[in-house]
Order: sequence, then C-alpha cells, then structure tokens
Amino acid sequence: MAKRGHRRRKRITNSDAIEAVAGSGPYVNRQLPFFDPLDEETLVKLEEQSDWLIQEIGLEFRDDPTALDIWKAAGADVFGTRVRAPADLIRFLCRKAPSEFTQLARNPKRSVKIGGQNQVFAPVYGSPFVRDLKNGRRYGDMDSFEKLVKLTYMLTSLHHGGFVTCEPCDVPVSKRHLDMLYTHMRWSDKPHLGAITEMSRAEDSLAMAEIVFGKEVMKGNCVIMGNVNTNSPLLIDRVVTEAIRVYCGAGQGIVIVPFILSGAMGPVSTAASIAQAVAEAMMCCAFAQLVHPGAPVVLGNFLSSMSLKSGAPTFGMPEPVLSNYVIGQLNRRLGLPLRCGGALTASKTADAQAAYESADSMHSTMMSGAHFVLHAAGWLESGLCTGFEKLVMDADRLGTYEKILVGLALDDEAMARDAYGEVEPAGHFLGCAHTMRNYENAFFESALSDSENVESWEETGSKDMAERAFGRWNELLENYQAPPIDDAIDEALVDFVARRKSELPDAWY
Amino acid sequence: MAKRGHRRRKRITNSDAIEAVAGSGPYVNRQLPFFDPLDEETLVKLEEQSDWLIQEIGLEFRDDPTALDIWKAAGADVFGTRVRAPADLIRFLCRKAPSEFTQLARNPKRSVKIGGQNQVFAPVYGSPFVRDLKNGRRYGDMDSFEKLVKLTYMLTSLHHGGFVTCEPCDVPVSKRHLDMLYTHMRWSDKPHLGAITEMSRAEDSLAMAEIVFGKEVMKGNCVIMGNVNTNSPLLIDRVVTEAIRVYCGAGQGIVIVPFILSGAMGPVSTAASIAQAVAEAMMCCAFAQLVHPGAPVVLGNFLSSMSLKSGAPTFGMPEPVLSNYVIGQLNRRLGLPLRCGGALTASKTADAQAAYESADSMHSTMMSGAHFVLHAAGWLESGLCTGFEKLVMDADRLGTYEKILVGLALDDEAMARDAYGEVEPAGHFLGCAHTMRNYENAFFESALSDSENVESWEETGSKDMAERAFGRWNELLENYQAPPIDDAIDEALVDFVARRKSELPDAWY
Repeated sequence: MAKRGHRRRKRITNSDAIEAVAGSGPYVNRQLPFFDPLDEETLVKLEEQSDWLIQEIGLEFRDDPTALDIWKAAGADVFGTRVRAPADLIRFLCRKAPSEFTQLARNPKRSVKIGGQNQVFAPVYGSPFVRDLKNGRRYGDMDSFEKLVKLTYMLTSLHHGGFVTCEPCDVPVSKRHLDMLYTHMRWSDKPHLGAITEMSRAEDSLAMAEIVFGKEVMKGNCVIMGNVNTNSPLLIDRVVTEAIRVYCGAGQGIVIVPFILSGAMGPVSTAASIAQAVAEAMMCCAFAQLVHPGAPVVLGNFLSSMSLKSGAPTFGMPEPVLSNYVIGQLNRRLGLPLRCGGALTASKTADAQAAYESADSMHSTMMSGAHFVLHAAGWLESGLCTGFEKLVMDADRLGTYEKILVGLALDDEAMARDAYGEVEPAGHFLGCAHTMRNYENAFFESALSDSENVESWEETGSKDMAERAFGRWNELLENYQAPPIDDAIDEALVDFVARRKSELPDAWY
Repeated sequence: MAKRGHRRRKRITNSDAIEAVAGSGPYVNRQLPFFDPLDEETLVKLEEQSDWLIQEIGLEFRDDPTALDIWKAAGADVFGTRVRAPADLIRFLCRKAPSEFTQLARNPKRSVKIGGQNQVFAPVYGSPFVRDLKNGRRYGDMDSFEKLVKLTYMLTSLHHGGFVTCEPCDVPVSKRHLDMLYTHMRWSDKPHLGAITEMSRAEDSLAMAEIVFGKEVMKGNCVIMGNVNTNSPLLIDRVVTEAIRVYCGAGQGIVIVPFILSGAMGPVSTAASIAQAVAEAMMCCAFAQLVHPGAPVVLGNFLSSMSLKSGAPTFGMPEPVLSNYVIGQLNRRLGLPLRCGGALTASKTADAQAAYESADSMHSTMMSGAHFVLHAAGWLESGLCTGFEKLVMDADRLGTYEKILVGLALDDEAMARDAYGEVEPAGHFLGCAHTMRNYENAFFESALSDSENVESWEETGSKDMAERAFGRWNELLENYQAPPIDDAIDEALVDFVARRKSELPDAWY
C-alpha cells in the first residue's frame, strides 16, 4: 500500500470492529418493505406444484431406516424408501417450527435473530481453494481458515461466522471439524455453524458448544446449527436425516438447502426448480419437527442457472435473481426463516465479473428478505474458492445493503424545511445549519470505494479495488486482537479437541 | 484475444445485432411488478414537501423574460424572477403530458415506447474523457464519439443512442452538435437525443431531424428529445426554458433532470432532496405544457451522495439506491414517464468497484421502473469518462435486466410435470424431453461472463472481464456495417452540416 494512501486512512483497530457492531446492531432489523413479485394465483400454482411433488411423486429417504420409522409413525405413506405424505400434514408440521428464533453467540452482544424482519449475513462456506493477490490460488489450509475466521470476526457487516470459510485441506477430514470448531470458538465470538458430514462430527460440534454455553443454556436456546444439502432431485440421504436428528434432537438449529442447477438437479425451468426446492425443504423441515417439535429450522434455497456452451453453473444471472425474489415471497406464506442467495459468481478472480454477478445476486437476496445469508462474502469460482480480497470487498458492499434495509429517514428533520429558509435558490447547502446537524450520519462511508478525482487516485498508485482490498485485509489482520475467553472454557475445548483427535484415525475422505 | 477463446465464440455480425433487436424487442416491456417501498402516509408527506416548495418557496426562472411572461399568463405568482404557483395548477398542467409516448427511430423497428410498462436503456451522456485498455485515458474526440455511436447501434440491450456518448473535444463547441447529430443519424438507426446547450443548436437538431423524418411526421410524432439539467437548488436558467420552448414548441420531447448532490445542491437528506427534485421537475414539466399542451416530457431524477472525507460525489451507494426505489413509486402517482439512475460509479477503471456500484445503481434503477435510463452503460469516474470496456460490460448486464424484467415463465410448460414422470429421484434432468424442448431459451447467455473452470480460463490467458471486454468491442467494430440510409437524405444532412458550419464561427465555449 502506498504510504500516502495509508496515512490518510484511519487506522483500523479491533475496538472499531467491536464498536461498529455495537453501533449498527449484531444483525439487520429490516425496515424496507418486502418485494412481492407474484400474484395470488401464481403463488397458489407454485404451492400446488410443491404439494403435488410431496403427495404424488414423493421423496426418497435412503440409508437411514430410523428416518423411515419416524415417517411411518407420523402416518406418511412409506413404500420402500419412497415417502409420500398429505401436503396438509407437512404444512401442519412446518408450522411447529419457530418463525423467528435467536442463535446465541458466546458474546451476548453478537447473538443474532433469524426470521421475521431480521437479516443475518455470513461468509462463504465450503470452498476447497483460497486465493489472494500475493499468493494466488492454492488449497485451503488451517492458516487460511484461521485468518478468514479472524477477518469475519472483525468485519462488522458479517454477523455470523458461518463455518467452513475454506476447507483446511492440511488436516485429515476425520479431524478437521475439531480444529474448525475450536478456531471459531476461540478466535471469534460471533455465532457459527457446526459440522454435518458425519453423525459423530455433528455430535462433537454439540459437545464443544456445550463446553462454551453449558448444558442448561443449550436446553432452552439455539447456540449452534448445521447446514445440510438435500440430494436433488427429491433424494434425502442419511447425512441430512442424521444431521437433523443430532442437531434438532438436541433442540439446536438446522438449515436445509436444496442445491438445484436447473436442467440438471431440477427441470430446466426456474419456476419448477423453485417449487421442487420448496417441496424438498418442507419435507425436511417437517421431519425435523417430528424429531423435535419446535426445533429451529431455516428453509434453504440455492438455485443456479447454466451455461449453454459448457453446462457449467452460472451465477448472478437473471434466473437465480428472479428465484431470489420469488422464494422470498413464497416463504413468507410458509412463515419459516429463509436462507437463499449470497454474493455469488463464476469468476475466478475479484474482477468486474465477480462484482457485477455478486452485486445482482446479493441485491436480489437482500430484496428477498432472506433471514440467513450464507456466502454473503468471499465466494469466487462458483464456490470452489474463497477470495481474501473478495471477502473484504463483499463485506464493504454488505454495509451498503444494511443501510438500504434500514430504509429512508422520513421524519421532520429529514424534510429539512429550515434549510430552505437559510439557502436561496442557486445557493448551496454545504454549510447550512441542517447540514451541520446531519452530515455525519447522512451517507454510508465505504472502506474500499475510491471516489477521489483521477489525479489523486493516480498519485496513490492507480490501485484498483482488489489491490485496495489486499491492503485492507492485511491491515485488519495486523490489528486483530482475540476476543476474551474464560481460561477454563478454553482449556476444556483444547482438551476435548486433543482427546477426540487421539481417538480418531487420520482419514482423508 | 487468445486464439482458442476466439475460435470457440460465435463470430459477431451486424445482422446478429439487428436480429437480436428484432427478437428481444426494441425496448423492454416490463412484466415484473413494481417495487413500492413507501406507505400512503409517507408518499403524501413527500408530495406535500414538493408542493410546499412550489407554493411557498418558489423557483427562480432567470435570464429568460419570455418564460416569466408565460408563467404570468398562466396565473402564477411572479415576483421578480421568483415563480410560485398553486400546486394544484402545477399538477393539473403535468397531467396534460402523455403518460406514455413513442419516440420514432429512423428505422421503425427501433422506435421506442417511453412510459407505462416500458423501459428504455441508453448509454452514458456528456463525458469529456474516454478510456480504453490500450490507449488509456484521454480527451474524447470525434473518432471515439463515432465508435461509441457504432457500438451503441450494435449492442442490442441499448435501445436508444443517447447523444453525447463522449464530448468530441477536437471539434469547436459551436459546431460539435452538427457532427454529433450527423453521426447518430448516419451510423446508427436507433432513436437519439438532440443538442440543448444553446437555442440555435436545439433548432439545428430539429432541422436535421426534419430532414430525416419530414415535416409531416414530425408534426404528429416525437422523433427527437432534449435532455436538460435544472440548476439545483430551485433555479431554472434559460438553457432549460429555451430548450423546452424549442423542443416542446415543435411538439418534440424534453427530459428534465434536477442533478442533486445531497448536502450541496439539496439538503443533506435523501428524502428532502427527492422532494426538491420532484418540485423542480414538476415546475419544468408544467412549463412545457404551457408552451405546448401534450408535449412529451420525461421527469428526471439524478441524486448522488457524497464522501465525507473529500466532499466528492459517490455512486452506487445506499442513499441513491433508496432514492431510485422511492422516485419510481412517487412518479407512478404523477403518471409521468421517468428518467433516473443508470450504471453509475466513481471508479476510474472498469474494475470491481465500477461493477459493484454500477450493478447496485442499475439494479435499483430497474426496480424503480425508470422508463428512460440514460447512463445505462459506459459511465466511469463520476461521469467524467466514458469507458469502452465499461460500455460493453454494462450492456451485457443490461441483457440480464431485460430478462429479469420480463419475469418468470409460469405456464404449465414451466411446471414441467412430465419431467417428473421421466426422471427418478436422484436422477438428472439433462436429457429428459422437457429439457430438450426448453433448454435453448431457458437461460440468459452472457457475452462476457466466464463460467468455465479455472483450468480452461487459465489456458485462454487468465483474462479478467475488462480484458475480454476489450476484445469484444474491437470485434464488434471490426464487424460493423452501417444501416442503410436514403442517399438523398444523407446528402441533405451533409449539406446542412456544411452550410451551418460555414455560417458559424469556431468557438470553444
């Protein structure tokens, strides 16, 4: 970073991050009305399609006989592994899930409300690769993972830590979840998700959460959630049902997300793919309520379009943008917390393509009223790669969405009538009393957008946004200070991880 | 451009451009519902604020005694150059303007409907500088101007040519309008705007339009419009009133745009700035109806926020995004065609900042239902610079907005029920009959987004979007073919330009 640019910027400190969170709130309480693009007739048509899939086609629940037993006991029509059920029953069960719930963070100031008028942003999840401007593209590792968790902790527009900010590929798969959980619990105090890839890993996640929160708190509160993908089309495998049984069985939360690339895992029609996703997610939500009535469930939706040239998934395109609008409205009738969208792109680097696609994807996600937005920052390369620059760039834009969602000030002070007594036509408002009273909070201040004139910009090195972002994430990390943690809790977490690692074999699958 | 990438792409021909326009329509007929963020109480509060400005504060109409005479004759309260009028009268006059009108193009296939459910996109207007990847930043000239007009002609998501795609700074200001008009009329057949900087230049614009369209056609149809800025706050100078008198006097159209940087030309409050802009534009619209009842008027709004560090204007920020939503709803109650927004940015280059800011600016513009969107492509550096790469990048994204605005297919074919008879759970829809019937039109195909895997992308040179855009605009220009024009018309235009140039002195102001 050029010296001059550096000197001009306020030094970022850890307390800035904490104060900003305290100032702007640990999540967004939306004031902007929702966007409802569909009329009643169309809504009913989509709902009937979901109901038809649930009643007539049915879903496969494979490799988990316990799940089939649960469905049989509930009165569903179970034929082999195919489960059909009256849509009324499924909707009745879904209504047992809370429409809004709180996920506690270990720092109570950072607990988030999920559902209703609230929106919570979390970083990218699950990328095997990472990329930054200096070191290029490489496999994710624990070093990168820890840096990403620390950055997420410091970035005030990220309200939730997510979980797999990148895959730490230098740790055996069988033990990876332990290091990831410890990293979130120790180096951040924001809420986060737990492991789901195997039943025992989900159980480890709950055990470590119990060390942090205590048995009593966990009994009556959501402190951790799992995020699972169905196997679209219409297949729910044991990873999903076991994760539901472990998390919801303990009264904890589950995020259920059909991932549908239209034309592959769903019909080559956005409307049909949305209805299918709703059917799959509703069935899983109902299953969760059979496991534990009242368990927090987030209904997920992840829909992408396809390149006709290569069949590759595309992001930020009109079809998933429309699907974000539509799923928001459909879901408000279901009354469940919703996850959809994110700052998605197929671009390999933090270039203009990444930004256009991410912005349109995220703008529609914001409009949809999505309550829990995973992948809201850092996603590159169709989800294969976490970008360090992309993370801080997206987070900066999330700050703009936070302000949009709070909406326009419309009180008498906002009408500024006194200013027109002071300022004549063709005059200017720069120094008038109303401006002096209000300018400090009038406008969003971006950390990464350069609005200087071209001469100033050239003097500081003609840096593009990605180069400025490289400077920013390095500066944030230099100024990182760990949030405090009770020594006894830290020790217990370290012991738990060590013990479980000693019990588990090194396995790379 | 790397050979391999080049071979894989379909060659762009002039007829592609023409066919695509024929296919997608010469403008967008919006099916997506509008977004209405305000409740009745708030709408009334904003309307009362505009009315209060019109009635109590009044607007200055300076340097044009004829304008004051027109106001006096209409019964307004004229004190010196200050004009106050009953808001009822102003609203009554505004209702005389058509809520929807057609601007004819010299190629009837490209005539555009402005107003109602229709949205028309046009390129950046007025930048003194241009920038491209090879030649960097430099003053605009006729060579660049002509290239930009040709590119706009070929880019199917740009429905309208705008006018000053860059300032041709190598031609004297006194003669520049003639060359610009001829370039639009000869090298494109899309509709475009005319000159407004001086009364005689507006008259030249109408005279040249008459050569193309004929006196009879012009009598009953809008074939050209002027785009004018008020002098906010609350000052309307003679450039505006004379342009209205010339264009509307001949039954042609006028776009009236208050440009307000909140805190400078309006109060440091988005709500107050919007109300002020509406007041200014309504007064000008009413004035136009006094000049010529029924003259086409587009109510404009151009609002930007400010950097607290430097006072520089910022774009794509939450405040103007909100203002786009709000002005859309407010304007629907006025029932006038609306111009707002665009693909705006403060970035100097076609980087991620440019794309994020442009996308959020344009996404909200699209949501607002803006009928005429100037600056929808090519804008860089807070409007000081036209970017060649930015032009084709933005135009590609405008294609996605076109598809979003058409909305979701929701007929029975879109529900794809037969596909679920053919595809089993956990199967795939890639080859099923429904996919075969529908895949060709299922997804928007971007010309500039790369969705290939990282290996393919690296093989073709790891080009970012701006580099691909450089290849695309050069390829478009290589394949440019002029639209046909009647030889007699062309000759008359050439003669007119030559005659007027001989009559006018070289002046650089």
